[in-house]
Amino acid sequence: MKQSGTIVEKQYFTYGAAPDRLQLESGAVLGPVTIAYETFGTLNRDRDNVILIAHAFSGDSHVAGHYPTDREGDKPGWWDFMVGPGKGIDTDKYFVICPNILGSCMGSTGPKSINPETQKPYGLDFPMMTIGDMVTTQKALLDHLGISELRAVVGGSVGGMQVLEWCVRFPEMIRSAVPIATTMRHSALAIAFNEIARQSIMADPKWNNGDYYGGDFPRMGLAVARMVGHVTYLSDEAMRRKFGRRLQDKEAFSFGFFDGDFQVESYLRYQGSKFVDRFDANSLLYITKAADYFDVVDRVTASGPLKGGDLQKVKYLVISYSSDWLYPTYQAKELVQALKRTGQDVSFCEIEADCGHDAFLIPDERLTTLVKGFIDGVG
Amino acid sequence: MKQSGTIVEKQYFTYGAAPDRLQLESGAVLGPVTIAYETFGTLNRDRDNVILIAHAFSGDSHVAGHYPTDREGDKPGWWDFMVGPGKGIDTDKYFVICPNILGSCMGSTGPKSINPETQKPYGLDFPMMTIGDMVTTQKALLDHLGISELRAVVGGSVGGMQVLEWCVRFPEMIRSAVPIATTMRHSALAIAFNEIARQSIMADPKWNNGDYYGGDFPRMGLAVARMVGHVTYLSDEAMRRKFGRRLQDKEAFSFGFFDGDFQVESYLRYQGSKFVDRFDANSLLYITKAADYFDVVDRVTASGPLKGGDLQKVKYLVISYSSDWLYPTYQAKELVQALKRTGQDVSFCEIEADCGHDAFLIPDERLTTLVKGFIDGVG
Repeated sequence: MKQSGTIVEKQYFTYGAAPDRLQLESGAVLGPVTIAYETFGTLNRDRDNVILIAHAFSGDSHVAGHYPTDREGDKPGWWDFMVGPGKGIDTDKYFVICPNILGSCMGSTGPKSINPETQKPYGLDFPMMTIGDMVTTQKALLDHLGISELRAVVGGSVGGMQVLEWCVRFPEMIRSAVPIATTMRHSALAIAFNEIARQSIMADPKWNNGDYYGGDFPRMGLAVARMVGHVTYLSDEAMRRKFGRRLQDKEAFSFGFFDGDFQVESYLRYQGSKFVDRFDANSLLYITKAADYFDVVDRVTASGPLKGGDLQKVKYLVISYSSDWLYPTYQAKELVQALKRTGQDVSFCEIEADCGHDAFLIPDERLTTLVKGFIDGVG
Repeated sequence: MKQSGTIVEKQYFTYGAAPDRLQLESGAVLGPVTIAYETFGTLNRDRDNVILIAHAFSGDSHVAGHYPTDREGDKPGWWDFMVGPGKGIDTDKYFVICPNILGSCMGSTGPKSINPETQKPYGLDFPMMTIGDMVTTQKALLDHLGISELRAVVGGSVGGMQVLEWCVRFPEMIRSAVPIATTMRHSALAIAFNEIARQSIMADPKWNNGDYYGGDFPRMGLAVARMVGHVTYLSDEAMRRKFGRRLQDKEAFSFGFFDGDFQVESYLRYQGSKFVDRFDANSLLYITKAADYFDVVDRVTASGPLKGGDLQKVKYLVISYSSDWLYPTYQAKELVQALKRTGQDVSFCEIEADCGHDAFLIPDERLTTLVKGFIDGVG
């Protein structure tokens, strides 16, 4: 029996075959490129009801609804509480597009894709790509769909970086932007955590310099990398409330290393082991590196003057979470100040929540109300 | 040419051979046990000028001064700015003892020591030990040295846990205690980081279930574990100030994975690679587990009533650091409140410093002045 609710299918857009391959920011070329995407709602006649949702590092195009193949009990898309008929981003009104990012392993071209030159998976032959390159492919997708205006670009975390990149690259296309739980550039702390995750994968002999497709993959290294990620997504308070020092399925300490004693250990091990079944280790390497390289400070600061006095105003709603220590509120405020200095129209809200960076993925009426009010009010 | 300054030698105390082996908290037995230790200054006639310094997780007995074998330029002990003639803990006045903890790899018995039953290194046959077991061996060392009173017990981080354990086990021996940058028990966050460090080691095939002595050891896993540790020892502010987004020996991004781009990456890689040359992976497993198990909340709370109304007063100076997010100030305050409720004499100071948990290892006049004033003033 199928799921009730919105049914959606993954679609694919391929372009950039030789000789029209993509020129990447690193100087490398790549092509052809496939971008997986999903759409929700109906494009109106004026083609001006489009909302682009950019997903976070390990996300995918499946932002809401169910696939036709889903069975009763299967989980809907990752932002189903936000996106759908009558919801915060109302698909009765808006045409929502969510593309899977370049470099991912969820349908778009990435390191596990076949390299046409070798007929083998790219592995480390996949060129380094940037957040800018991700946005370039999304722009190509919109061109392909005949869309030249975005009512809103919305995204959290690495998705928020794409939102900011969109705004500095194509402000003339954008009426509003909602960067959530994000930053103009990674702090040393954020880079440090990503580097530990990468080192953990690269330390696994099964990583084999990225050449592991078709064989055993770096399961252990990838699991530890994900554990590191999960600690940064939570917060001290969230972990205290969620786990405290409670033991997992035992009354006393095990005095051993193989069974986790504490619930938090079991949780992390579970998250690690679940992740390795769905995510590619090389994709983690490439996407974390793109996030570390990302830096729009200069371009945001210059976004007024660069337009030659004819400032393109984008309406912004910047949202941060009080307990996010990966991209803390002070970084959101730096963004707000930088945007205001260029004369942009900026609203800012810090949501009080103890659940850390991942808060934007957790149903919260305040977030939904904020986003709905803002997007519906875009002139 | 030898170093100037205090010259010290590592000493060893061995006890607990069969049939008098140690009964550990886990129920296991262990023996014989050797405790490496160093002493500074002179024990007075009344034997009442003794200060015990408990070192942190990866520390050792070499708290200050130089070994006779040191050469010009060799670093002195890890708290040399604090301990020595005329310093904060003045070895002209006090007899300072610093024992290496049980389970370590710096001279005391630990998993890399020879198991007398097999004549091979213990590896995972080493029994799980607790902070309480560490303190038990330190008590045995003091008995051996004929010391029955401590003017002060001082230690930071896991050393601070030993301080608290001393206070609940042997309050009648202790006149004052200085727990620094520590906690009554690990939060879920602290357990999470330790678990990631352990998993990183255990994921390395060269760990080989702890049986790697004499062969290649889990260098990669241990390095990643240390990188995790270093992030928890610093703070967002410290990393921003120390590294920011500065690149390491390059003008532009490498667009590759093998050379770190950012200084913070090089720093972590360097710390990781340095650590593997001096520390044993199994010791990390055992000591982090002991720290995770540690919990004196109930015993601190009960420390008044348990003495049958005849409360043994210990004078406390509790010190925390404003940017320590491993053992944040709120945890130090919980300790202060718990001690006060039992009628203890407690002073508390939060030192404003942006360098995170490791601050107590960094020369700081405020810390020295605080500790000196407190210890000199013990009645």
